[in-house]
Order: sequence, then C-alpha cells, then structure tokens
Amino acid sequence: MSTQIKKIGVMTSGGDAPGMNAAIRAVVRTGLSYGMEVVGIKNGFKGLLAGDIIPFKSSNVSDIIQRGGTILQTARCKEFMEREYQERGADMCRVFGIEGLVVIGGDGSFQGAEKLANLGINTIGIPGTIDLDIACTRYTIGFDTAVNTAMDAINKILDTSSSHSRCSIVEVMGRHAGYIALWCGIATGAEIVLIPEEDRRTNDDIIKSIVENRNRGKKHFLIVVAEGVGNCQELAQAIEHITGIESRVSVLGHLQRGGAPTALDRMHASLMGIYAVDLLAQGKAKRIVGYDNGQYVDYDINEALQMKKDINELRLRAVQILSIK
Amino acid sequence: MSTQIKKIGVMTSGGDAPGMNAAIRAVVRTGLSYGMEVVGIKNGFKGLLAGDIIPFKSSNVSDIIQRGGTILQTARCKEFMEREYQERGADMCRVFGIEGLVVIGGDGSFQGAEKLANLGINTIGIPGTIDLDIACTRYTIGFDTAVNTAMDAINKILDTSSSHSRCSIVEVMGRHAGYIALWCGIATGAEIVLIPEEDRRTNDDIIKSIVENRNRGKKHFLIVVAEGVGNCQELAQAIEHITGIESRVSVLGHLQRGGAPTALDRMHASLMGIYAVDLLAQGKAKRIVGYDNGQYVDYDINEALQMKKDINELRLRAVQILSIK
Amino acid sequence: MSTQIKKIGVMTSGGDAPGMNAAIRAVVRTGLSYGMEVVGIKNGFKGLLAGDIIPFKSSNVSDIIQRGGTILQTARCKEFMEREYQERGADMCRVFGIEGLVVIGGDGSFQGAEKLANLGINTIGIPGTIDLDIACTRYTIGFDTAVNTAMDAINKILDTSSSHSRCSIVEVMGRHAGYIALWCGIATGAEIVLIPEEDRRTNDDIIKSIVENRNRGKKHFLIVVAEGVGNCQELAQAIEHITGIESRVSVLGHLQRGGAPTALDRMHASLMGIYAVDLLAQGKAKRIVGYDNGQYVDYDINEALQMKKDINELRLRAVQILSIK
Amino acid sequence: MSTQIKKIGVMTSGGDAPGMNAAIRAVVRTGLSYGMEVVGIKNGFKGLLAGDIIPFKSSNVSDIIQRGGTILQTARCKEFMEREYQERGADMCRVFGIEGLVVIGGDGSFQGAEKLANLGINTIGIPGTIDLDIACTRYTIGFDTAVNTAMDAINKILDTSSSHSRCSIVEVMGRHAGYIALWCGIATGAEIVLIPEEDRRTNDDIIKSIVENRNRGKKHFLIVVAEGVGNCQELAQAIEHITGIESRVSVLGHLQRGGAPTALDRMHASLMGIYAVDLLAQGKAKRIVGYDNGQYVDYDINEALQMKKDINELRLRAVQILSIK
Repeated sequence: MSTQIKKIGVMTSGGDAPGMNAAIRAVVRTGLSYGMEVVGIKNGFKGLLAGDIIPFKSSNVSDIIQRGGTILQTARCKEFMEREYQERGADMCRVFGIEGLVVIGGDGSFQGAEKLANLGINTIGIPGTIDLDIACTRYTIGFDTAVNTAMDAINKILDTSSSHSRCSIVEVMGRHAGYIALWCGIATGAEIVLIPEEDRRTNDDIIKSIVENRNRGKKHFLIVVAEGVGNCQELAQAIEHITGIESRVSVLGHLQRGGAPTALDRMHASLMGIYAVDLLAQGKAKRIVGYDNGQYVDYDINEALQMKKDINELRLRAVQILSIK
Repeated sequence: MSTQIKKIGVMTSGGDAPGMNAAIRAVVRTGLSYGMEVVGIKNGFKGLLAGDIIPFKSSNVSDIIQRGGTILQTARCKEFMEREYQERGADMCRVFGIEGLVVIGGDGSFQGAEKLANLGINTIGIPGTIDLDIACTRYTIGFDTAVNTAMDAINKILDTSSSHSRCSIVEVMGRHAGYIALWCGIATGAEIVLIPEEDRRTNDDIIKSIVENRNRGKKHFLIVVAEGVGNCQELAQAIEHITGIESRVSVLGHLQRGGAPTALDRMHASLMGIYAVDLLAQGKAKRIVGYDNGQYVDYDINEALQMKKDINELRLRAVQILSIK
Repeated sequence: MSTQIKKIGVMTSGGDAPGMNAAIRAVVRTGLSYGMEVVGIKNGFKGLLAGDIIPFKSSNVSDIIQRGGTILQTARCKEFMEREYQERGADMCRVFGIEGLVVIGGDGSFQGAEKLANLGINTIGIPGTIDLDIACTRYTIGFDTAVNTAMDAINKILDTSSSHSRCSIVEVMGRHAGYIALWCGIATGAEIVLIPEEDRRTNDDIIKSIVENRNRGKKHFLIVVAEGVGNCQELAQAIEHITGIESRVSVLGHLQRGGAPTALDRMHASLMGIYAVDLLAQGKAKRIVGYDNGQYVDYDINEALQMKKDINELRLRAVQILSIK
Repeated sequence: MSTQIKKIGVMTSGGDAPGMNAAIRAVVRTGLSYGMEVVGIKNGFKGLLAGDIIPFKSSNVSDIIQRGGTILQTARCKEFMEREYQERGADMCRVFGIEGLVVIGGDGSFQGAEKLANLGINTIGIPGTIDLDIACTRYTIGFDTAVNTAMDAINKILDTSSSHSRCSIVEVMGRHAGYIALWCGIATGAEIVLIPEEDRRTNDDIIKSIVENRNRGKKHFLIVVAEGVGNCQELAQAIEHITGIESRVSVLGHLQRGGAPTALDRMHASLMGIYAVDLLAQGKAKRIVGYDNGQYVDYDINEALQMKKDINELRLRAVQILSIK
C-alpha cells in the first residue's frame, strides 16, 4: 500500500468525550505504521491557529487507551467561523507540513474541518461526542461511557429514592438530543422519559401517569429528563404540590463527560482511528467516518452535515411498556 | 449467655445510608441466633406509630448485604419530638411485645431512641449516616461508600476539567459537617477544600491561591465544597470574572447516598449489628454503639449526644501540602 | 394488533449471562400489556420437565433489570436431547396452557426450542450468552458486560504487571469463540491475542514478537488468550525460560458471567424481549430474534442454526497495529 | 521546625499495592515543602544498587494519586540479604547525597531498611502491602482496595453461582495471612471462610456444614479460602462427590493487586507519607509508621518486626452467625 501523504495531524475539538484518547492513539499508531510522521494539535482549532503542535512517537500514546478526557485537550473556537482564521489555519498546516488532518469532534468541529478541506488540507472527521447527535453515524465515541455513567448514577439515586418513597427527577446531558436520556430511562426502568425529539408532555399529563402508577402500588418514581427539555424544578414542585409525593431534582452534570471509556468506546475509537488514516493513505479527503450496518463507512462532510436522524420507535415504546408495575 | 429478652425490633431512621441493609441483616441473624424473635419496623418512628411492623425470618435478609438503601425504608418523623407520640410509640412496642429495639440512624434518631428508653423500652442506637457527624464514634455506617462515590464522581469531572483547562467547583454532601468534603478533597488532590468547621475563606483569598497555582504551571483547578458552606455559584462567578478561568459548579446530590456499600461499610455494619444485639442480650439499654481505638464500644445515649468532635489537624495540613504542583 | 395466544412462558437456559433478568422483565411486561398470562419456567428445560412453573405479575419483575444472573435460574439438561423428554416437555406446556414460549439462551437451548416447536409449541429464541457465538445475530445478551468485566480485570492486572515489568497471560472466557478475547485485547492494548478462529501461532513466533517489542523499549507485556485456545501455563514457561521475563498466568473464570448488566445489555435485552413477544402476538413461531443493521430481525430457528459467522478483519488488524510501542 | 536533612529518597519495594503512588506523591511534596531535595529510587533495593535514581519535582507526581501500581516500579531483591550488598546500598545513598530514605513496602522491605539504618542512613518504613500482615499497624496501604476488588469479583461469581445453584470456592490473596479472606467472607456473606490463622477444618466438617445449610433451604454456597490455606480443588471434588452439588473453584489472582486505590487507601497513603517525612525532618530514623487508635504513630523497626498480631474474635464470630439462612 503506497501513500503520497508524509505527515498527518490529529486534534480533538469541541466538548471532550471518553474514548478520544483511544482514537488519538489509533490515529498515531496507524499513521506511524504507514511510515507517516504524526503530530498532535493541542486545544482544537484554537491550538492550530496558535501553532500549538507537538510531534508524536508511538510511546507518547502508551497507556492512554483507558483514560478519560483528551491528552491533546480541547477548546471551542468561535473565530474559526470566519474566513480569515480558516485561511490562517490552512497556512499553519502548510508551515508544519501537515498534509492530512484528523479531527475528532462533533458537527461544529466538522464544519471547521470542511472549511480547511476547501482550502486544500485533506481532512477526515471522526465522530466524537457523548450526545450521539451526528446524523451520518449510528455511533459517536463517548456515548456508551456517558450512558453507563449516567445509568450508574441514577441507580444510586434510586436506592435512596426507594428508601424514602420519593419521586426523583434526573436531568442528563445530550444538548438538543435525547439519546442519553432515552437509553438511561430504559436501562433504569424510568416511568417517564422527556426528550426534545418528542412533543413536550404537560405537567398534568405526567402527574396523571404518576398517580396511576401509585394506584397500582408503586411507591417511588423516576423521571429522566434530557438537558434540552429543562424545567425540572418546576415539574418537581408541581408533582409535590398536587400529589404530596416528595420530589427531588438531580442534575448529573459534568461527571457524565469523564471516566475510563467502556470497551465499546475503546473499540469504536480504535477502529475509527484506523479507518480515518486508511482514508488519508488512500488519498481521500473531506470525509466523515461513520458506523452503520455493523461496519465503518465514510461520507462527504457536506452531505453528512445535511443528514437527519430519527429516534427509534421501538425504544419509545419500551419506555411505556416496561416501566408499568 | 442467657437472656431475658424474647423479642426485638429493628428500624432505620432519618436519612438513608449504604450499609443499613447489612446492619439490619446482622441484627436479625444475631437476634435469631440468641433464640429471640425479631421484627422489622418500617419507615422509622413514623412506621412505629402506624404499627407498620413485619416479622423477620433469616431468609428475609438474604441477599441484602450488598444492596444500597434500606429494605425497611426510612422517614423523618417530626411528631416524635412530642411526648404524646413518644408514649404512643412505647405503647406500640408493648402491644407487639417488642422488648428491645435497635435504631439505625443519626443524632436525631438517637434522640427518639432515648425518649423510648425513658419510657421503658430497651433501645440501642447504631450510628448510620453518610455524614460522619456523630461525636461518640470514629465511624458511621455509610461514610466510606459516600466518600468513594463522591471521589469517583470528582475524578470523572477532573477528566473533563483537565481537557478544557477549567476550574471545577464540586459541592459534596455532609450537612453541617465537612468530613466528606475533606476526605474527597485529599483523595482527589483538590487545591482547596471548604468546610464549615473552618473559618470561611474569602473569595479573594481563594482566587489568590488559584492564581499562585496557575503561576506554577497548573492549568486546571479543583475546589471541593461541603454542603454546609454553600455559595458555590457566587464563587465560580468571582473566579471566572477575575482570572478568566472558565469555572463550573457541580452539585453531586443524592447519588452520594446510594450504591452498593463498600467492604468497610459492610464490615462495620455487620459487626455493629452483632454488638448491638449482644448489648440487648446482656440486658443493657439506652446505649449507642461506637467504634474507637480499633474496637466496638458503647456509650450512654445522653452522654453520647453531648460529645464534641474535632476535625483532624493532619488532614487539614494534607490539603495544603499535597496539592501544590 | 389482535392475538390468539392467551398464555406464554419464559425460561433461561444454558449458561447464564448478565441481562437475562432484563429480558425476562421485558417478556413479562410486554406479555401482560397484550393481555396475556405470563408464567416463568425455572431451571430451563429441566424445570419444564419437572413442572417448576410460577405465575408472573408485573411486580414480580420489579427491580431486576439491574441484576446479574437470572431470577428463573438456569440449568443444562442433557435428557432434552431425547425425543421422549421433548414430548414430555410439550405435554407439560399443554398441561399448564402455555401456548407460546420464549427461550433465552444459546445454540444448545435453541435446539431444544426447535424440538418443542416441532411438537406444536410456539417457541421464540432470544440470544443470551456472553460468548457472542450465535451466527444469526450481531449481538447476544451478556457479551458487553462480560467484555467490560474482563477488560476491567485485565486493566487491574496491568497495573501490577507494569510495576513488576512482567509478562501477563490472561485467559478469558468464550468457549469455542474468540470474541471476548479479541475485544478485550484491543480494549486493553494487548500485544498478542490468541483466538481459536485463527491458526495457532507457535510459542516461538509469540516469543519473537515479545522480544521485538522489548527491543523497542516495552517493559511489560500482555497476552490475552481465549478459553478455546488453552495452554497458557506452557506458554508462560516458554517465555520465562527463553527471555527471562517473569511471566504469570491469570484465568479470569466465572466472574466474567456475573455483575450488573451494562446499559447496552439492558437495552438489547429489553428490546429483544419486546420483539419476541410481538412475534408470538403475531402468531409466529420457531423464530430466533437477531440484531442486524441497527434493528431487530428474526430467523427460522433451523436456518439460524446453520449460519456461520466470521471474525471481523479490521479487528484482527487492530491488534497488530495498535499495540506497537 | 528546622531540619538538617537536605535530600531524601523514596522507593517502593516488594509486592506492589494500590495506594503506593499516593504515598510517593505525599513523600515528594512534603519533602519539597520542607525545602528538601527529593529523589525516587526505581525498582526497590535492586534499583538502589544499580543507581537507578531520578530527581523529583512536584509536577512529576501530578495525576498519580488515583493510579494503581507504582510509578517507581518495584522488585524483590534477594541479594540485599547479604552484608556486602547492604553496604553497597548505603554507599550508593552517600554517592547521591541521600540522607533520609522512605521505604514503602512490607516486612521484607523493612528488614532491608533496618540494615541500611544500621549503616548510617536515616530510614523510615511505610507499611504498603495488600496483605495487612504487618504487626505494628492496624492498617497497611493497599488492603482496602484489594478487599473491595476481591469482594466485587466474588459478588459477580455469586450471581452465576446462584443462577446455577452451585457451590463456589474462591481463593483470595493474603500470603500467610487471612485478613483479605476474612473481610471478603464477611462482606459477601460466605458460609465458610478458611484462613491460616485458624485450625484447618476437615473437609468432612465443611461438607456437614454445607449440608445443614442446604437442609435449611440454601441453594448456593460460598467458601472463601485464603491463599495460605490452599487445596481448593481437592475440597471442590470432595463436596461435589459427597453432596452432588456442582462445585467450582475460582482463583482471583493478580487482579487483586491493581486498580485505582479507594478513598481509604489514598487517605492513609497521603497521611503516612506526610508523617514519614515529618519524622525525617525531626531527625528520627529507623522507624516504621503505623496507624493505631485513630492516629499515626511510629515504632523502632526492630521492635516492630518482633510484634505479633491476632485475628479479631468478633470477626470470626461474624462469619458463623451472619451466614446462616
């Protein structure tokens, strides 16, 4: 297998996600196995503009596959929306001899990658976000770890909720997407899951459902709410006021972004990293790596950014059927 | 060892804590091994007043040693502060033939136990609270699990805090006590730990310390704050405003009360449960079980409730010395 | 959707797997939501023969989604290979009025299910085994939990292996399949993974690879071996004898079968349970539920038992590329 | 507090234990806070002889408090039993200007430390071993993590043992001591715990006890055996042969030595590290740090090595009383 590309870079961009380190490791070692030079760009596009670029040997990525966070760190970079900064970024790549660039991040990061690609830098995107909100792929690195972390936290909350016969309302992450909420809700047996993809249920509707469950003998209740839905405190007050059931809100927050990645995240991150460098080695550019139908695929960035994604119907049904006592 | 007592009860009262089930199991099986009848009183003193009392066989407490929460559930019961309800509680014990009662809970619960004891019921208290805020004992059931849970959560927050070069401010539980905060702070290498037992440091003082650490090369920061100190949002805003370091607050909340108990909690809960029933079998009453000097001891409830407890000086020093980069 | 079936049964059969309880819960509650009666058959086909059958209400499966093992217990039943016992099993179904039967287990259990189907009982198989060795489906309940459990154990072994500059040889489960080994190997950065699906590498070949890694500066080594390959002790002795590197074997054993199921296992188990009862409600029989291309599907049992499955090439390549220091 | 000592060294020696990194970190940062130079000696006494010594800045021990293993690595060193090598070790200390030395390890390591002390090097021992087999202290670094790791593994084994109605025999670590076994046995509700400190029970005696439990309705059984007792396979065969109960042996092995340390291990390691350097700063030498009566203390090494330790009677009783169904 021959390749024209001699030097590639890798960065993590946007919000961090568990498994990003495993992806960095895979990109570095696959690149080296092709005989390429590999450099790391720190702090995403912000670091690219600053020339915050470090050379990578294989040993630099030893012992990181199991670590949360990202050794390259990450940052959001608004300036990169502007043409001027995009050109500066492309120039910086040329100055450092970076011919191919792997960007690990979400939709926002891919927009930056697309601009660089238009300016002649071979860019490949790897989907890395806990939110699973990238339409062209069934999987995004970090999702499984985030779901398991949130699920474990909710199970702990259920212990005390059950001891005190309470209603627990737990807000999980996901920005505008309800995947984490839906998975956690099914995995913990939540009575109600509120996600932005569905029409907002009224508080009255929710309370009615809780009272019906109480009438069937249920003594403690769990409502999982996606970040993008909000208004948990108001809901808690309404439930407590109307039913008399003590109701407490927990906002799980940033702990959902960290922790050692699960096996699934390490696997997807490793294989997507290999796949991305394979694409560069084949002279491809402006692609996003996806996972579909049990294998890795790739799409044109523009095309990928236009796609839409639906919530699985069976999962919505699962919430309704399975939590009834 | 012969005993006059033929029937004992056990309840959990106040806030729940991991390990309470292990203590219930120990009380039940030790009681049965003495040939006593054992009953469980549900929902603490509230359940006692309601006569919510169930007989216990050995198999009823199988497979619970590893469970968080409490199978007897718990509740707070304000009425039990009043003489009338205390007498009703004592009467209910007599109606059910309960001669000895083991109360697993915190200071508030022991006050209730003391009242019952004055009315002729042999009561023994077992310290069960995640807050470690009972003066007569070096250990309270649930503390170790809560600290480990909070520590793990903080370590996850540190992953993302470090990826983004942030300052994380994490509020942990403990009511008026700073033990959980102090332990978590040392165990996670926090730069600053704020506890109610120490004079409140000014925001300026805290910010100065963060800036000094930044000057030494530190890029992310951790402040652990005990529930009893509060004002985390205000602190975060001050730090971000003055230093420009992005600062985020996480309130860990109720997940700290749940989860499978650690080995230490299962051990203390098991041995305190045995010890409590031993006391009843010896005809003792109105005692609180404690742990001191590597062994289990017991104190008169009144005496115990008067004791005071200090924060260990070496631990305070540890925060200062060990977090300096 | 109308259904003729009035009563269904559910059993777990063969080796147990984390998530089986989540599947039982889903079968029970989906059946009840269709207005069916649902019974549980204890101890697999052995319990069927013995008439060890219990009625299920919705509350009987409360609080089990997060539990390892199976509340219905399981057993292997050799007699069920014989026609006589199969007929007895079908008769027992008729005696209890069981018109549809969901069997959660592996290939062996599906053979039993097929026999029952031939005798007129509507059977549906749900793939439940940690080994992932069922050809008609990309997923089998329990796999993800087992992989994460083994991965966590190996990461702990790596801590001490690294402290002592050792070579660790870890045998993981999987019977005749190498999936657990391959996933764990990639997820922990093993230098070498030995699976039954590949030609056995000679000890000399393995030792050469270790020495090359040592020459590149690596100081500790990890070899993950699938159960179906064996001979770990002999390999350890050869490595220690020829290279002088202290080599230790760990056989992870039965702990890989237990533990709270991961989110992925709870999700697949829940949705496969719903899907299986949907099939029964639609009057289908003799089907196995599978997961493919991101959705649930079903196959004729006979057809499914004939299918073959390959190890993913990209994963084999990942072991080689990614572990090179 | 003034000190004459200008340079200290720290090493880990013998078997590794979780928390050793936390102790190294505490020694380094406490030393630096006294204005001392601090160096790390790699691979224990073997590395001392080889002059494998590295300077420590505060940042070198950042981000290690939560890591298993030891960044200084460790080794056993038989040669150090000989006078000639002890003198060489003392000379090497002088060559490097090491006036004080903190040795983190077990009894064997302390003997080496004592020899160095006799040759004029100020040595302080910190008890670091998962086995808890050091007589002068109630706690040794690593014990709590090892117990929790083994306990979690046994709980997973119990899931499958219970699903199959088996007898599980689990061998845990501890060398000649039964502490890990006793703690795990109590924490997991084992019917029988076999430790070297007690007279060996005959297989017949054990089998009788299992049969009695079976007669009371128990269906699965757990026997925890300390490494120093052995003969698990023989016991399993005897149980299976006489009772017909399927019996399986699991040897937990090296995974018990690894993993992120628990809060208790991080706390003790941190405070013992501070305490050890405090001793050096006060001009003390030839001491072992211990934990007793809720505080840290120190003993003369020779004296400490003569002490004896008993197994707590209440714990032995707990096994008998609490596992009876």
